[in-house]
Amino acid sequence: MTVTTPLQPTDRTSLRRSKERAASDREVLHDVLREGMFCHLGVIVGGDPVVLPTAYGIDLDKGPDGTLYLHGSVAARSVVAAPRQTICVTVTHADGLVLARSAFHHSVNYRSAVIFGTPRVVTDPDEKLHGLNVIVDHLVPGRSKGSRPPNRKELAKTSVLALSLTEASVKTRAGQANDDEEDLDLPYWTGVIPLRVVADEPVNKDDCDLLVPAHVRTRASLLGAPS
Amino acid sequence: MTVTTPLQPTDRTSLRRSKERAASDREVLHDVLREGMFCHLGVIVGGDPVVLPTAYGIDLDKGPDGTLYLHGSVAARSVVAAPRQTICVTVTHADGLVLARSAFHHSVNYRSAVIFGTPRVVTDPDEKLHGLNVIVDHLVPGRSKGSRPPNRKELAKTSVLALSLTEASVKTRAGQANDDEEDLDLPYWTGVIPLRVVADEPVNKDDCDLLVPAHVRTRASLLGAPS
Repeated sequence: MTVTTPLQPTDRTSLRRSKERAASDREVLHDVLREGMFCHLGVIVGGDPVVLPTAYGIDLDKGPDGTLYLHGSVAARSVVAAPRQTICVTVTHADGLVLARSAFHHSVNYRSAVIFGTPRVVTDPDEKLHGLNVIVDHLVPGRSKGSRPPNRKELAKTSVLALSLTEASVKTRAGQANDDEEDLDLPYWTGVIPLRVVADEPVNKDDCDLLVPAHVRTRASLLGAPS
Repeated sequence: MTVTTPLQPTDRTSLRRSKERAASDREVLHDVLREGMFCHLGVIVGGDPVVLPTAYGIDLDKGPDGTLYLHGSVAARSVVAAPRQTICVTVTHADGLVLARSAFHHSVNYRSAVIFGTPRVVTDPDEKLHGLNVIVDHLVPGRSKGSRPPNRKELAKTSVLALSLTEASVKTRAGQANDDEEDLDLPYWTGVIPLRVVADEPVNKDDCDLLVPAHVRTRASLLGAPS
């Protein structure tokens, strides 16, 4: 089952500005999350906001609106603090630099998902292993079966957090610059520099003489490896 | 003058974990910030952390440790809230997916800078214009001279925030996986999938028949456009 309920804006996720950019469409949210590799986790530690890059994975069949999984060391301050508060998880794709005729109208083409909620610490051993597999398979589909599963000691060192995708917003910008009418004849170039993330050829570790497996090759090609 | 004083760890920026990854080197911080295009701004709004992607620029000659400039609409909640609190600005480069023989040792090669501080609202008109130029030139060097400067009305709509680079940390990981001794003979591939951001060919806006200027071409080639 794929969750297709509409996004439910709350005060935090209803965008006050640029509402035309708020795509109230859960499918767009899922696409942004599926395509992203890393998120930035915002958590309050000692009274101050802390923003840390980290891996994530999603299971759209878990819970009423789908679940985002995070993991970290059981000793990490951010991981300890997160389940006691509302956290913010942001996934951003930078798609292009938008150069307008005026400095003011310069912009960025992007897709960004923001999720708020209080994460649940995953204590059930099956879900914990599932969450970790979701994260590793998110980065490289098929990788959980292409590596040794975590053992009991490793599981004990790792916390897995589950965050519902219920309270989320997604914001996108695409296309060219919005120049002012009176600027259209100015002698300044206007256009877009497209951006994307690519993978280069996978590099074997020195002590590994195995061929690069299909799931790794597929991941690299999904990322649009340059020719 | 380029600032070369060492990073001064505080409780927030001294890393409790993986200290070997904390490169206490201001030059590394500057490289990460110079090479980055966007940051994730963490700010507390209504009691909760909010993480938003945004553009930034740096002036290493401004203030004792250099200054990071942010901008936004004067009406944006995050921009209004920021000068009344400690904010967190994080710039991340994802350099590669690190695939270990065990799921547990999977990792990411990255470079990440985290800056804490209370930003100053820039009120001086000259510095405000300077800050905006720094941001646009950070994204595309030379662009502030290749576009119409902001007029009074545009400046009035825009807030510029200045954040000192004093309280900062930088964390990096590079290289291959750290497999456990007992996993070395497992039949799983281990290696790195290198990642990078590239620019594709700049795209003129429909109503612009000017040639792509040198500063735009240079920006695209700096990003390592794929051949």
